[in-house]
Amino acid sequence: MALDDTWFTEIHQADGSAFSLKIKAKLHDEQTPFQRIEIYDTVHWGRLMTIDGYYMVSSRDNFLYHEMMSHVALFTHPDPRRVLIIGGGDCGTLREVLKHKGVEQVWQVDIDEAVTRLSLIHFPELCASNKDERAHVLFDDGIKWVRDAENASLDLIIVDSTDPIGPAEGLFNRAFYEQCHRILRKDGLLVQQSESPLYHLKLLKEMRGAMHDAGFKDTQTHYFPQPIYPSGWWSATTACKDGNVRRFREQDARNKSFKTVYYNADIHRAALAQPEFCREAGLS
Amino acid sequence: MALDDTWFTEIHQADGSAFSLKIKAKLHDEQTPFQRIEIYDTVHWGRLMTIDGYYMVSSRDNFLYHEMMSHVALFTHPDPRRVLIIGGGDCGTLREVLKHKGVEQVWQVDIDEAVTRLSLIHFPELCASNKDERAHVLFDDGIKWVRDAENASLDLIIVDSTDPIGPAEGLFNRAFYEQCHRILRKDGLLVQQSESPLYHLKLLKEMRGAMHDAGFKDTQTHYFPQPIYPSGWWSATTACKDGNVRRFREQDARNKSFKTVYYNADIHRAALAQPEFCREAGLS
Repeated sequence: MALDDTWFTEIHQADGSAFSLKIKAKLHDEQTPFQRIEIYDTVHWGRLMTIDGYYMVSSRDNFLYHEMMSHVALFTHPDPRRVLIIGGGDCGTLREVLKHKGVEQVWQVDIDEAVTRLSLIHFPELCASNKDERAHVLFDDGIKWVRDAENASLDLIIVDSTDPIGPAEGLFNRAFYEQCHRILRKDGLLVQQSESPLYHLKLLKEMRGAMHDAGFKDTQTHYFPQPIYPSGWWSATTACKDGNVRRFREQDARNKSFKTVYYNADIHRAALAQPEFCREAGLS
Repeated sequence: MALDDTWFTEIHQADGSAFSLKIKAKLHDEQTPFQRIEIYDTVHWGRLMTIDGYYMVSSRDNFLYHEMMSHVALFTHPDPRRVLIIGGGDCGTLREVLKHKGVEQVWQVDIDEAVTRLSLIHFPELCASNKDERAHVLFDDGIKWVRDAENASLDLIIVDSTDPIGPAEGLFNRAFYEQCHRILRKDGLLVQQSESPLYHLKLLKEMRGAMHDAGFKDTQTHYFPQPIYPSGWWSATTACKDGNVRRFREQDARNKSFKTVYYNADIHRAALAQPEFCREAGLS
């Protein structure tokens, strides 16, 4: 059955699959200095933002990604106070991070102001905490920002970026991870989206290897569903400067004072389980 | 971006999404007395079987479904010996069930012989255990077979069916579950695919309600990724005649004597975790 032009389709050429959403209208189309951003109104998924033709965020399923990119790491760190988000211009991760009362400062550093400008219009719910006095919404090159940051000045770095092609390419290598390691304090964590376990296992292993090479003591990959991303099954990888990346503050997660849609303490523990083929590939 | 006719597409109209696989060739197209079965050769997913235009099974990702439809229930039952599979004509679930050495007899009852005939040709790896002397591959109406079965004669019933439209409609209601309850022995379990938690939460709740109404003591829904099914995120629900559906033989799962691709003891435990929105909807 063919899809007509009332559908937005992302093709995953290397894996011969495609995912489509039925759209009502294209609301915006902008070529920024960094990338092409499109905004659609969909029939059943609310608003949709795409970058360079790839799904970034939809109203309907972004809770999965944003919750699993933030709360897993925040409840793993013993006392996260100073947090850096690289990318994340839609502000959904920022909103989740700020739900943690112990967090004192969050810097969100996205290279492209247009992502946040358009999110404020089309995803206002994701920007609900932008005015929190702990939030610093900056538009800058994340790699440069990290290079310029002081030694041992952060507790958690969340790399909430696009795929490792285009502007985000420099966020997936040893040189970048070494800088992250340098600016993290004791017990510091780095968490980064690490693509699909089904489609990108090689990339995932290389990322983990580069994190170890950069001095991180341990890494842990966790998994979650994400319908609009390739294969519908996604992962994030947490690296720890020292300490134990597998332990988390389970009681705090169980007693969390804020609402979530997907995340809870049971889901946190469950997300750490390694599928047999991932374990055989050396993941943990 | 439009998809040309080198793609097979399944549209999920009610949720405004579609998933497509790039195909090399259509190998078979047959209207049986029950349904239309098509076989494709895909570029990256091996063989693909569709029924009435819906994805059934692909070479690449069927391990997720077949392992999670069988091993979760088999390691939950204290001593499963006599197993019934309703549907399951591709024989992939049968193969997984027979990996358990304690299983003495398995009846696979699919209404349509064509599914198995075509699986033998196009998915021979799924049919690898069809000649096991414990296996009884039957072609019959599963509802009738269950109605004719003796009281307390089975340990586990696996309903590995198509969606609750068409021939499988009668497998999703209280009358059918009452018959299942009757033919199960003490500690008996019923496990059934229960659709997408994101797309079909109402159906999932109704199924669980009907299982309870039919006399099952408890139900447990578990979750797993399944790229070719709607939303890429799938579930199955286990109902127990008595006993505890949440406990499983974890040591036995950890020491399993056979290979799997997705399932292991950690994944089993993880699959039982309820996402927050499912818990709020009353699922467990």
